[in-house]
Amino acid sequence: MKSFFKFILKDLAAMLDGEVVGNAQLEVSGCASFGEAAHLDITFADDPRFLNRLDQTRAGAVIVPWDFTGFDRETLTCSLVRSKNPRLHFFRIVERFNPAKKTVPGIAPTATIGKNFAGGKGITIAPGVTIGDNVTLGDHVQLMAGVFVGDNVTMGSYTIVKPNVTIMDKTMIGQGVIIHPGTVIGSDGFGFTPSRGIHEKLIHAGFVQIDDQVEIGACNTIDRGTLGRTWLQSGVKTDNLVHIAHNVVIGENTLIVAQVGIAGSTTLGKNVIVAGKAGISGHLTIGDNAIVGPGAGVVSDVPPGEIVSGVPQMPHKLWLKVGRIIPRLPDIRKRLLALEKRVNSKESTP
Amino acid sequence: MKSFFKFILKDLAAMLDGEVVGNAQLEVSGCASFGEAAHLDITFADDPRFLNRLDQTRAGAVIVPWDFTGFDRETLTCSLVRSKNPRLHFFRIVERFNPAKKTVPGIAPTATIGKNFAGGKGITIAPGVTIGDNVTLGDHVQLMAGVFVGDNVTMGSYTIVKPNVTIMDKTMIGQGVIIHPGTVIGSDGFGFTPSRGIHEKLIHAGFVQIDDQVEIGACNTIDRGTLGRTWLQSGVKTDNLVHIAHNVVIGENTLIVAQVGIAGSTTLGKNVIVAGKAGISGHLTIGDNAIVGPGAGVVSDVPPGEIVSGVPQMPHKLWLKVGRIIPRLPDIRKRLLALEKRVNSKESTP
Amino acid sequence: MKSFFKFILKDLAAMLDGEVVGNAQLEVSGCASFGEAAHLDITFADDPRFLNRLDQTRAGAVIVPWDFTGFDRETLTCSLVRSKNPRLHFFRIVERFNPAKKTVPGIAPTATIGKNFAGGKGITIAPGVTIGDNVTLGDHVQLMAGVFVGDNVTMGSYTIVKPNVTIMDKTMIGQGVIIHPGTVIGSDGFGFTPSRGIHEKLIHAGFVQIDDQVEIGACNTIDRGTLGRTWLQSGVKTDNLVHIAHNVVIGENTLIVAQVGIAGSTTLGKNVIVAGKAGISGHLTIGDNAIVGPGAGVVSDVPPGEIVSGVPQMPHKLWLKVGRIIPRLPDIRKRLLALEKRVNSKESTP
Repeated sequence: MKSFFKFILKDLAAMLDGEVVGNAQLEVSGCASFGEAAHLDITFADDPRFLNRLDQTRAGAVIVPWDFTGFDRETLTCSLVRSKNPRLHFFRIVERFNPAKKTVPGIAPTATIGKNFAGGKGITIAPGVTIGDNVTLGDHVQLMAGVFVGDNVTMGSYTIVKPNVTIMDKTMIGQGVIIHPGTVIGSDGFGFTPSRGIHEKLIHAGFVQIDDQVEIGACNTIDRGTLGRTWLQSGVKTDNLVHIAHNVVIGENTLIVAQVGIAGSTTLGKNVIVAGKAGISGHLTIGDNAIVGPGAGVVSDVPPGEIVSGVPQMPHKLWLKVGRIIPRLPDIRKRLLALEKRVNSKESTP
Repeated sequence: MKSFFKFILKDLAAMLDGEVVGNAQLEVSGCASFGEAAHLDITFADDPRFLNRLDQTRAGAVIVPWDFTGFDRETLTCSLVRSKNPRLHFFRIVERFNPAKKTVPGIAPTATIGKNFAGGKGITIAPGVTIGDNVTLGDHVQLMAGVFVGDNVTMGSYTIVKPNVTIMDKTMIGQGVIIHPGTVIGSDGFGFTPSRGIHEKLIHAGFVQIDDQVEIGACNTIDRGTLGRTWLQSGVKTDNLVHIAHNVVIGENTLIVAQVGIAGSTTLGKNVIVAGKAGISGHLTIGDNAIVGPGAGVVSDVPPGEIVSGVPQMPHKLWLKVGRIIPRLPDIRKRLLALEKRVNSKESTP
Repeated sequence: MKSFFKFILKDLAAMLDGEVVGNAQLEVSGCASFGEAAHLDITFADDPRFLNRLDQTRAGAVIVPWDFTGFDRETLTCSLVRSKNPRLHFFRIVERFNPAKKTVPGIAPTATIGKNFAGGKGITIAPGVTIGDNVTLGDHVQLMAGVFVGDNVTMGSYTIVKPNVTIMDKTMIGQGVIIHPGTVIGSDGFGFTPSRGIHEKLIHAGFVQIDDQVEIGACNTIDRGTLGRTWLQSGVKTDNLVHIAHNVVIGENTLIVAQVGIAGSTTLGKNVIVAGKAGISGHLTIGDNAIVGPGAGVVSDVPPGEIVSGVPQMPHKLWLKVGRIIPRLPDIRKRLLALEKRVNSKESTP
């Protein structure tokens, strides 16, 4: 990746508490993946697939694990930087090469702001933002163009709301939260009751609470509680097009991958991973550290630490076996019918 | 749920045509679910799970079915309100505690409105709304911030369009419709035809018709007809992230749960339920009162009243059996192979 | 479909290089599908289902394949137009009856435009559009209401961006591209790394490249590359609610149907079709001309030209057999158990 910046390898290593092996004076002018790096680029290797072929990268420098010793200083064709977390540290360097644009704080004249607004220091409110009554924003909050914020919403400091996000009334958002474009927070849940032959709408009087350091992908839909709250606890990360229904609770540091749907009143524990396109029924409990496989259909509780896959969900190891057998079903059926025939013919033989 | 309001139980019961058993003068200060209610709250119980443990709620009052008799006046620890529809009536009380904010009608100065606009009494057009030419809005229509309305669109009275919704030209919307944020109505369908080695776009000249009392969830995509209309009949309710393709027809009071996709030219009858994440192929007919289970893949017509599940879809009761057998496939295969071996060995034995 | 327009059949045929059989002077006043056409309408038939029942349409004229001979001039009840591509030509006529509204080029006073903006001839920038710094738009580009365009974005000529679309910084868009409402392009990918017990965000320094003649449906989410690009090559068409993760590459003229999800760093070839709701795992290669069936779960590479379906994916023909056997699993299990019993009982018989 071309860049306007150049850094001396020694300085980059110092920034990471890393240690250079090779030419510490190397002038690094870009960063790239292992396979695409050119000779003035830095890259990283935290996996034997890459560590075993250091001689094949054209990168000028490679960040490697602190305890990596599988190299020969004599024949090394690139410099190394030993690091406690190569992936994380590589992306820290990528940040140095791609510094975030400094936003100029201020409130755009085309923004509309309701009564009793309380904004902290250094907030940025872009053109076309609409804010309701009784809204409180912490320091350095950024609301990008086209964002809607309803009444009685609060946001902690350093929270960033990307363009065209809709945040309905009573939503409580913590610090350092990132909300990607097109997402909707606090829409009414899907709650109706039969009455006189139609589905009568039930009021949704609850709210959404989003704790610190949560990151929400693009075009998510997170419904408010019917009563009480829908709650994403601190450190939760969601990917794109995720649906989270009313009164769902998602525990700390849980990851929800793209196109997952979680039905009403289900509770997920801490450090759970829900892989892409999985669906979880309502009123279930998914324990801490559980993993739900891609496309799984979860219809009953998942105990802590369990890994499940398939439709309906089953232990992941069992699903791997089942997945290998499903394509053999025509063969299994044929063999069963043949066997039946043989047993029948023997019985009819005197 | 804390509230600024207090109501006398007798007055609440009167509002519902209900009947108090116990202290009719009780001062109710909030409403909550059965498990979370505190001693001045009202809650409801319409299910034996709750009706059988009235002694366990801390609620001051519980709304119960009219014909419920399973209590002993002497030992009752809370007041009861007998009701013809406890769930509906409870949420009517929740509305009393959470009155909707009165919007101040008017047209924001930052809204942009095209030629030949006809707006009824008491309409609200929020900041940043853009309206095309020849648009007619009934009385008390509300268009919230960031809504786009194309040319030749009509809306009936009391329809509410939430923020950042996009309604393309020629859409016809009835009365009392609610459209949640981020939804797109009237986008072009996915229609191309091969020509000279590429996919040539076909014009989409049709429109979307949405009848009275329809409610559409957040981030839905409802494509216009290729020719003619895509049609959601009165009382249809859709959840979030639902895709409805060109020329689909959805009958009255049908419910479509989150992340469902319905392909082009399929027709659903009245009072159908399509559960979350189900997919329905194009050019099919789903009969009145049919139910499609969660995640089902519907590839052929479903007769009226039938309940189907699974991929490909099958009768729901059959799917329940199949779902129990799928995890046993490794065992079934093992037993088949063992049996084959035994039969083989017997045959080879003289 | 009623219309303000009338055309002489001879003139329509000439426009298509077609040839009239029957009344070339027929005055055509509308266009409709085969089943819905009335006597002054034109329709088309490119399929034996319709060609075999030309006597059943009420249409005044029918466009048929050039080499179609299955009619008798004497008894023909409508005029025919012989055409090299009946479907494409029919929709060309639909366009004549539904001419696109002429947009008046110009930049709305409520649009916000950053530094170093370069706009071509005849561009249209609607109310409420926000454009960042260093943006270049080709001739006749249209940005509709509520569109957000970040910094350093380029668009080729005749590209149309529909309302409420979000295009983040560094996105490169070609000529003749259409982006439907609510779509998000260039959001950060789902990239985190464990560090001190939490998921630490990795900077997403890459971008999205969209080549000429691409059409993107409503409410898509297309993430930027982590490093390098996410790339939709020329002629790609996506339907609604599609998720395309970081660093995905989609080859020329590939079709992606609604609600598909493609995980990070997967590469699709040219002329691939991915049917609705399919999911494709990360780091895979899908070959040219491959077809992925609806709802398929693709977890390994798909060779060029192969047709796969099912979860996990398998050859489509095998899946058709498997799909017929799955509902018979209860029967298969019963027969296996019965057979086991018979073999057991024979063994125990002396």
